[in-house]
Amino acid sequence: MRHLMSPLDFSVEELDQLLDLASDIEKHPEKYAHACDGKKLATLFYEPSTRTRLSFEAAMMNLGGNIFGFSSAESSSAAKGESVSDTIRMISCYADICAMRHPKEGAPMVASAVSSIPVINAGDGGHQHPTQTLTDLLTIRSLKGRLDNLTIGLCGDLKFGRTVHSLVRALARYKNITFIFISPEELKIPSYIKEDVLEAQGIPYQESERIEDVMPDLDILYMTRVQQERFFNEADYIRLKDFYILNNKKMKLAKEDMIVMHPLPRVNEISVEVDKDPRAAYFRQVQYGVYVRMALILTLLEVNLC
Amino acid sequence: MRHLMSPLDFSVEELDQLLDLASDIEKHPEKYAHACDGKKLATLFYEPSTRTRLSFEAAMMNLGGNIFGFSSAESSSAAKGESVSDTIRMISCYADICAMRHPKEGAPMVASAVSSIPVINAGDGGHQHPTQTLTDLLTIRSLKGRLDNLTIGLCGDLKFGRTVHSLVRALARYKNITFIFISPEELKIPSYIKEDVLEAQGIPYQESERIEDVMPDLDILYMTRVQQERFFNEADYIRLKDFYILNNKKMKLAKEDMIVMHPLPRVNEISVEVDKDPRAAYFRQVQYGVYVRMALILTLLEVNLC
Amino acid sequence: MRHLMSPLDFSVEELDQLLDLASDIEKHPEKYAHACDGKKLATLFYEPSTRTRLSFEAAMMNLGGNIFGFSSAESSSAAKGESVSDTIRMISCYADICAMRHPKEGAPMVASAVSSIPVINAGDGGHQHPTQTLTDLLTIRSLKGRLDNLTIGLCGDLKFGRTVHSLVRALARYKNITFIFISPEELKIPSYIKEDVLEAQGIPYQESERIEDVMPDLDILYMTRVQQERFFNEADYIRLKDFYILNNKKMKLAKEDMIVMHPLPRVNEISVEVDKDPRAAYFRQVQYGVYVRMALILTLLEVNLC
Repeated sequence: MRHLMSPLDFSVEELDQLLDLASDIEKHPEKYAHACDGKKLATLFYEPSTRTRLSFEAAMMNLGGNIFGFSSAESSSAAKGESVSDTIRMISCYADICAMRHPKEGAPMVASAVSSIPVINAGDGGHQHPTQTLTDLLTIRSLKGRLDNLTIGLCGDLKFGRTVHSLVRALARYKNITFIFISPEELKIPSYIKEDVLEAQGIPYQESERIEDVMPDLDILYMTRVQQERFFNEADYIRLKDFYILNNKKMKLAKEDMIVMHPLPRVNEISVEVDKDPRAAYFRQVQYGVYVRMALILTLLEVNLC
Repeated sequence: MRHLMSPLDFSVEELDQLLDLASDIEKHPEKYAHACDGKKLATLFYEPSTRTRLSFEAAMMNLGGNIFGFSSAESSSAAKGESVSDTIRMISCYADICAMRHPKEGAPMVASAVSSIPVINAGDGGHQHPTQTLTDLLTIRSLKGRLDNLTIGLCGDLKFGRTVHSLVRALARYKNITFIFISPEELKIPSYIKEDVLEAQGIPYQESERIEDVMPDLDILYMTRVQQERFFNEADYIRLKDFYILNNKKMKLAKEDMIVMHPLPRVNEISVEVDKDPRAAYFRQVQYGVYVRMALILTLLEVNLC
Repeated sequence: MRHLMSPLDFSVEELDQLLDLASDIEKHPEKYAHACDGKKLATLFYEPSTRTRLSFEAAMMNLGGNIFGFSSAESSSAAKGESVSDTIRMISCYADICAMRHPKEGAPMVASAVSSIPVINAGDGGHQHPTQTLTDLLTIRSLKGRLDNLTIGLCGDLKFGRTVHSLVRALARYKNITFIFISPEELKIPSYIKEDVLEAQGIPYQESERIEDVMPDLDILYMTRVQQERFFNEADYIRLKDFYILNNKKMKLAKEDMIVMHPLPRVNEISVEVDKDPRAAYFRQVQYGVYVRMALILTLLEVNLC
């Protein structure tokens, strides 16, 4: 039995299979409409995340399966002092597969060690959020047609954003990827990512403080939120924040076939005027998130459709 | 694609069709038991309303469909600052139809403007609650056999009650309706309703401070809550509150075929002794609420059963 | 129509039938996978209890039925002052059966008096939790092969634990049961249980302050939590708490076929090292809880499978 803890749990070959399955689901959803009839997904959300929870639930229902669970810690047994290990042993008696979101890093890993059903890490603190990375990979492969030979700009809070770190590690496994990191000084990509992941493998990257300077080179622009509380002082925040707001003016500098991605929710780092640009891919990304979660559930449950 | 924002969105003819469908559902529920197989209703409740949420969910499950969503704002992405527009774009990727309850007037309208799935307004602040009005209309038509030629008394808080305002506007479209407004001075029906809706169309109405005075004339008595905090001073509240509590003694003054309605929840404005009176229709009203929501979901999803 | 308020609602013969049905469900789950197709269970939890709620929901989904409801009072109409009686009349229009958890003793009983659907008491304050007792009986019968001729040790908080009181009353109806009560002085089994239930029927029991003293005699050890706040002073708590922590050393004194049960959640009264002992039955107990709730739903809905 397999769990999903990190996006790197799958080899590149396994990932290809998963993404192939997701693409087939996109083309032929009716083929999969009863693939999980009678099966149950438990969503164990120790902190709220409507977006992720509903994506998993939509995925399971699209497969004909049932859903149940809890959406915040107050309504769970955790309030009575039960360990995650004991909770997952209980859930193993109730469900066929579960998705766990937890504020503490490693909680899903602890759960997977004693679980008798597949556990999917649906986000553990600032650590991992593997289904977001799978979503990003499927979006890129679907809209750009490939996962290699790409120049990808990552913009915003590159210091704390687990989404960005995971995506860099995941894309680093493909050929001829160039990373361009766009952020204020305070929110630069950590040196351990640059050294251990990129330099160690000879993967090219550059850093920039302004979107405009690098926009024409990008095949993909991956936007993330810049939170005011991350800055050391308000003056820096005010000086820099507009640099990281994407608008139509900046979009004019980009390639015609560039795509803009965002893990959402967005606050104001992408101006709503960009939504109508055909290169805005962030809402389509949500849809790919459902397909890839459907593929993941099928894979972990080892459901084979002839 | 259609949404439902206000009970007046449907013409009288369209409403007739909807109520006909609801009545057919009541008679032949089995015909509709799989009408929405594989479809998903998202209940997006930014404030709790168990009654309305469960009614929608029961309706969708009676049609064979699936349900998911959230039941309060804390467990939604709104806490992360996401706009209603962005949330509905996400939900459009997950669900086939949604019911939205929101404390802010107009939020469902904003959602409907960008949604790619039908949006049902399940109550927006003090503004609209169209499925309550549809429920009221179905209840009246089912139990009285008609929507015209009726004398309807509306009793309680007529100043702030959106349910009452909506019902008045909806019934004003039918022939030979007489309204009798029963309320304390402080909670009288607003003059814009009297002038713009009733007088403008020559619809007869009268106002009364006491149920007893008008009871014998009524075909329908529509009760609502009188909340103490609405009164300017406690003396008035104490003087008046009993006037607006329906009991068996007052019921003796009514016609034998009058019906008592109430949008529920009731607190104490209808004495529990009235529950056993065959004219008490407020719990049957709940059941009609399920049928009319089933009809509404089928209509908005354009499901046709041959 | 029947409800379930107390584990003693069923006669010993009816209970046998229920447990037989639960055992058949365990052996042939596929036979029951569509027994409740199109039916709806409402879980009305006025206080959170993830374990119990998810067990009911898993049970209903295993039968092909649908689930909905609320998981805490804040998201229910109770916040608007609606009575339990009115709420259940509403739910009767929505669901086919319901499970109610309520902090107030007797609330499910009040509901059952006006309900037109079966009501299951899923725990009412410190009063009753009948499906826990049914779970315990099924676990004992399944793992020990009988409900008579047993020596059962009940350990921990025997004063306040409703689970223990219910189980004593339920087992007292079978032949040749011996009870051994293991607790600190402050948390001894109440005298009304000893006098009214045991002595009145001539059922043998003994009391002990230490697990070790009685361990070799037990067929079943039923553990419960000892909460520090139950003690009169901290010195007593510190002196006694280790007496009531089950570990491998104490397990060495027990029979080879003894079983350890616990209603869960456990905090630290059973050391995790015991989990691997084949006599540890508390997680299997969770699974039996699903089977017995499936049998209960089928029984109350009077579903007959030919």
